[in-house]
Amino acid sequence: MPYDPSNIFARILRGEIPCIKVYEDDKTLAFMDVMPQAEGHVLVVPKEDAVNIFDLSPEGAAALISTTQKVAAAVKRGLAPAGLMLVQLNGAAAGQSIDHVHVHIIPRSAGVDLKFHARDMVSSAELEPLAAKIRAAL
Amino acid sequence: MPYDPSNIFARILRGEIPCIKVYEDDKTLAFMDVMPQAEGHVLVVPKEDAVNIFDLSPEGAAALISTTQKVAAAVKRGLAPAGLMLVQLNGAAAGQSIDHVHVHIIPRSAGVDLKFHARDMVSSAELEPLAAKIRAAL
Repeated sequence: MPYDPSNIFARILRGEIPCIKVYEDDKTLAFMDVMPQAEGHVLVVPKEDAVNIFDLSPEGAAALISTTQKVAAAVKRGLAPAGLMLVQLNGAAAGQSIDHVHVHIIPRSAGVDLKFHARDMVSSAELEPLAAKIRAAL
Repeated sequence: MPYDPSNIFARILRGEIPCIKVYEDDKTLAFMDVMPQAEGHVLVVPKEDAVNIFDLSPEGAAALISTTQKVAAAVKRGLAPAGLMLVQLNGAAAGQSIDHVHVHIIPRSAGVDLKFHARDMVSSAELEPLAAKIRAAL
């Protein structure tokens, strides 16, 4: 699949669409998922144009895991979830819905089901305090 | 949580328990999951003693993603799944069952549910042909 620069993450990376940013460096961006599967759900994207993990350069993958590790630690410190799940989906059959490679950082609590199917939009007013805690823990 | 060197992945890394290996280098090992959530389910572990993503060194994380990317590409070439999911779980609340950090590479087909709850042991005779296809695609 060729990379489509009109995908929503490309537009966020270009600043055409706002996001609630928690971290950014020259190769990656991390921001709150507006349709969180759990409270504190963060997305990490490389700035490289790549549809999935197969298209991403080894350097892009290294930057992606580096930021993921950093932000996951901040989510843990800032929000203190019981557990934390990292998920990276490739292909519609695997549940990938945006065709720019990304990692989901998802806090988990035992007994709290993930909202996999009924994804609801959450307001910035609800997300911003979570983002502030994560940023403070970076 | 302190690292417990008697965990099953540590024992596999020390060669005390056999595994169906698909890839190994000086920092990582990839092998077939004997309780696969889907056909072709592979696990990638760093050789570093680390319970979870928070304990893993940045170098260990870089090695883990490098091998994951390489093996995921081989799973895709060798088994041609419709989609492919990478999952890394931290903490019992997130579903982590072995306390040595690991990445799940899970082939996905649309409409085929993951065996998250009813995990069954699969024989080497069933896993070996899949491993052979993945190795050949590396």
